[in-house]
Amino acid sequence: MSRDGLTRMTKVEVVVPGAEAAAVRDVFAAAGTTGYTSVSAVSGLGHHGYRQGRLLFNDQAPLELLITVVPDERVGGLLAGLRGHLATSPGVMFVSDTYVSRPEYFS
Amino acid sequence: MSRDGLTRMTKVEVVVPGAEAAAVRDVFAAAGTTGYTSVSAVSGLGHHGYRQGRLLFNDQAPLELLITVVPDERVGGLLAGLRGHLATSPGVMFVSDTYVSRPEYFS
Amino acid sequence: MSRDGLTRMTKVEVVVPGAEAAAVRDVFAAAGTTGYTSVSAVSGLGHHGYRQGRLLFNDQAPLELLITVVPDERVGGLLAGLRGHLATSPGVMFVSDTYVSRPEYFS
Repeated sequence: MSRDGLTRMTKVEVVVPGAEAAAVRDVFAAAGTTGYTSVSAVSGLGHHGYRQGRLLFNDQAPLELLITVVPDERVGGLLAGLRGHLATSPGVMFVSDTYVSRPEYFS
Repeated sequence: MSRDGLTRMTKVEVVVPGAEAAAVRDVFAAAGTTGYTSVSAVSGLGHHGYRQGRLLFNDQAPLELLITVVPDERVGGLLAGLRGHLATSPGVMFVSDTYVSRPEYFS
Repeated sequence: MSRDGLTRMTKVEVVVPGAEAAAVRDVFAAAGTTGYTSVSAVSGLGHHGYRQGRLLFNDQAPLELLITVVPDERVGGLLAGLRGHLATSPGVMFVSDTYVSRPEYFS
């Protein structure tokens, strides 16, 4: 599928406490992603409700936003890995379409 | 609507001067959002034209990027609140689809 | 095209080494964009493969995430300019749909 010669891929954004970022990068690597972009200086509140009576995030916790982009054939494995991680650790993920100019960089 | 078992939601990103961030968070709360993610270390230029002859943003102003995710039934109220805020204060918003794994966190 | 009274535009996100950010802003300006948002405190690894045997990004390099939004008639020129820049310089771009409330700010 193309758009102005671009290739559709899936962008996955994960927001987690800074202490969990290394574990998320491990999930990215295990799913065969070719890299990631990380944004620090991130904070948040609640955002996605409560876990067992506690706020998922609070204003004090330093968070990290991790972004990776994968072709269709890696989406299932990546999402399964992230769901597994997020089942027992705080954080949230957002999944969306994006289009890239050099698909070979992500495959 | 689902995608690999995910639920479609609406992501709203707002870029405002740092001094306006608290007011935007108030709009988020009034619209029933369950939280937000905030990115500091943001700057910008113009970006979205001019307001009454002045640049909307300039290179010096520290900006903040606020992100929230809402289910369909909260989109209308949230966008109305943000339009009201942005009608008289500098800033811009971007609205897009996103997919999440745990919809109950956002409802 | 509208969504709750919003106007569809194209969001282009570019991740480059900090030293390349000024050149990307020049490409934005040459394509007639009306502004941009920039996020610093960004890092990354690989992300998009290798260039001539070297990692495109590494954990040490400070990166910058630049975001701009353009109406349809400016997409072609902007993407051509960015492809030209990225053909010889490190970095990656992501293209996606977004919806804005005040289209005149981006035109």
